[in-house]
Amino acid sequence: MPGKLRIIKIGGNVIDDPVTLGEVLLSFSKMEGPKILVHGGGKKASEFSRKLGIVPQMINGRRITSAEDIDIVTMIYAGLINKNIVAQLHALACNASGFTGADGNSILSIKRPIEPIDFGFVGDVKTVNHTIISQWLKDGICPVFCAITHDGNGQLLNTNADTIASELAIALANEYETELIYCFEKKGVLADVDDENSVIEQIDSNKYEELKSSNSIHDGMLPKMDNCFHALKNKVSKVSIGDILFLKDETATHTTLTF
Amino acid sequence: MPGKLRIIKIGGNVIDDPVTLGEVLLSFSKMEGPKILVHGGGKKASEFSRKLGIVPQMINGRRITSAEDIDIVTMIYAGLINKNIVAQLHALACNASGFTGADGNSILSIKRPIEPIDFGFVGDVKTVNHTIISQWLKDGICPVFCAITHDGNGQLLNTNADTIASELAIALANEYETELIYCFEKKGVLADVDDENSVIEQIDSNKYEELKSSNSIHDGMLPKMDNCFHALKNKVSKVSIGDILFLKDETATHTTLTF
Repeated sequence: MPGKLRIIKIGGNVIDDPVTLGEVLLSFSKMEGPKILVHGGGKKASEFSRKLGIVPQMINGRRITSAEDIDIVTMIYAGLINKNIVAQLHALACNASGFTGADGNSILSIKRPIEPIDFGFVGDVKTVNHTIISQWLKDGICPVFCAITHDGNGQLLNTNADTIASELAIALANEYETELIYCFEKKGVLADVDDENSVIEQIDSNKYEELKSSNSIHDGMLPKMDNCFHALKNKVSKVSIGDILFLKDETATHTTLTF
Repeated sequence: MPGKLRIIKIGGNVIDDPVTLGEVLLSFSKMEGPKILVHGGGKKASEFSRKLGIVPQMINGRRITSAEDIDIVTMIYAGLINKNIVAQLHALACNASGFTGADGNSILSIKRPIEPIDFGFVGDVKTVNHTIISQWLKDGICPVFCAITHDGNGQLLNTNADTIASELAIALANEYETELIYCFEKKGVLADVDDENSVIEQIDSNKYEELKSSNSIHDGMLPKMDNCFHALKNKVSKVSIGDILFLKDETATHTTLTF
């Protein structure tokens, strides 16, 4: 029976407020057993771009990662946010070490094809090096991954943090019983986006298809949920979506996804 | 007989030019056996501060690391420079992973006392966690350290990269025959700062005292050389100072320091 490994992804809104981040890191530090933290940090990067007078380029409402932008997200995600999280976790007696996918070639990506839309320096995960990540866990390290990967040819790439979390969970599922937790600003998947208390507590793949067909799920949630079901289809044992109360207390309201 | 470990520190001027950096990383990638790269990155941080309209604070000609500055050096050193170096090393088949002293609690520092001068968020190395660094080396990782450490209480600290290199070499000297190489823009320690060819090829501690007494060494070199002799006094087997030609070819002109 393999040991359990928890992979916790924390969203942008959780990171932006220092008090909330402190609470999340405290809850994370208290979790027993091997664990991995994954974070993005979109808002801070946008704020910083604005300070530098860089105007985000968008196509069809989606952001393009220009050469300037990849430098900024590398600074903000891999530098400022990642290393401050690592330092704070050590203050909470959690033996953290921060990584991008370039470190130890842990997550190799492919630059997204420029057709039909050229998203710039954006990477789609190709291979997770489960050997080195598993070795780090055995070394007693708690890996903290930010949303940067590399292409193996020297280029860093901006990569969706939700996807990094699910790909890590899938890649380590042969060695560990992996559990994936998405922690964001809502209590879970909402039936009514305007009602914070309309959490759907259980969603299986049939229910998910129903909800999609009836347009009941907020557009922003769909890629996250696709990641969840992709993980469940690929040996990940458990996927949950909730807010910081759920990280503190497993019995708090949240959404559990099952295949 | 313990194995050999090389610790190579590359200076600001080596990093600032992408072509020079590429050459250095190529030479570094070709070095056989366990190795550690240490880098600073001062100029890029200053340039970036200016873009943001931040005026460096200086006292007695020495730079103060304000709360804004520690964020910037964390972004530039631990983010932009460190992760691009790591990605480039992987493209050269070198299994690099980038670290600050916060990662794995690898280098713990103490914030410099505020008397007589308050340097702000600057750390002096207290403890190097040789166990985790040695484990990373055994894992087949080539650690790449930037000039950021932490205080164990959640605060990141700006720390001299020359000192980080010498403290790493000292801390690992019980497990490895450690060799320290400082690579910068000069061919070695110059007898005449205006003559690039006046390299002093051998300096022992007596000669160093003579050179200091006669004010023959450029002020900027003294802290670097103090680090070198501190290392030699503490079981480090070999210390050299040279430029990128020396990294490529050990027979090129350079300075060798001996105790």
